[in-house]
Amino acid sequence: MHIRPAGAIDADGIWRVLEPMIRAGETYPLPQDMRRDDALAHWFQPAHEVFVAVDPLAETAESIVGTFYLRANSTAGAGHVANCGYVTAPRATGRGVARAMCLFSFERARERGFRAMQFNLVVATNQAAVHLWQSCGMEIVGRLPKAFRHPTNGYVDAIVMYRLLVDD
Amino acid sequence: MHIRPAGAIDADGIWRVLEPMIRAGETYPLPQDMRRDDALAHWFQPAHEVFVAVDPLAETAESIVGTFYLRANSTAGAGHVANCGYVTAPRATGRGVARAMCLFSFERARERGFRAMQFNLVVATNQAAVHLWQSCGMEIVGRLPKAFRHPTNGYVDAIVMYRLLVDD
Repeated sequence: MHIRPAGAIDADGIWRVLEPMIRAGETYPLPQDMRRDDALAHWFQPAHEVFVAVDPLAETAESIVGTFYLRANSTAGAGHVANCGYVTAPRATGRGVARAMCLFSFERARERGFRAMQFNLVVATNQAAVHLWQSCGMEIVGRLPKAFRHPTNGYVDAIVMYRLLVDD
Repeated sequence: MHIRPAGAIDADGIWRVLEPMIRAGETYPLPQDMRRDDALAHWFQPAHEVFVAVDPLAETAESIVGTFYLRANSTAGAGHVANCGYVTAPRATGRGVARAMCLFSFERARERGFRAMQFNLVVATNQAAVHLWQSCGMEIVGRLPKAFRHPTNGYVDAIVMYRLLVDD
């Protein structure tokens, strides 16, 4: 697997990754009935630098096993904090795709001059994600009670995660 | 003092409140050299419901002693969490303006169906604000190390504050 910047040519492959996440509605605050064009416009919004994780043996739309965006989480005095959103294809879970994307995003964020990474809303029921991000050095800095409406569990907590990317 | 929705007629008065905050650069992640038109466009962006606190004895631009916006902090599954930004005129500090705006915003947020209020970035050096929001029921849920670049203190922590607005 390798990770590279995404382009318009990747739209089909990225949509195949995003659609199951959007329809499930369990991890991202996106409308469950969001349409392909709106979802891709959201993912590729101007402030987002988008990447794909691909299976190098089969470079077709089907070979995209994950995607993420990197952006500034805020502006001006808080513009040195980055934010990412990562999605792995359901068929590719358990293969280290999310970890590889996360570690890649830290490097890319450092290259761009960001000094920290913040995840604003990790749904607390998504324990696998919380643990994975912790193993990548992200720390739980806070818990937002009932901040996410889960389609089957109702109002559940969300976790704010954060880490510095530089030492000085 | 009373609080009412803001309109275009309030632009001068709101700018008189915003400009000292923007030029100081110590509390909001806005460029210190931000121009009047850009600042007002930011404050009145479509997703913001804007209010002013006015001195009822002198309803002129000079009588605006504070302003705040109310918006959804996120979308879809997290769209029930509100967010506000409040600014008090320097000449009006210590008179309960910020507290009145905060309590008013909770009521307005409830009216609009929001179930919680979140402040994403309270600069930790702004201890007066942290204490004031706590006295209004906001709780510190997390601390983001070095998340804000203070113009004189360098990188300082930021506080995430949150409260539920409904009991059920």
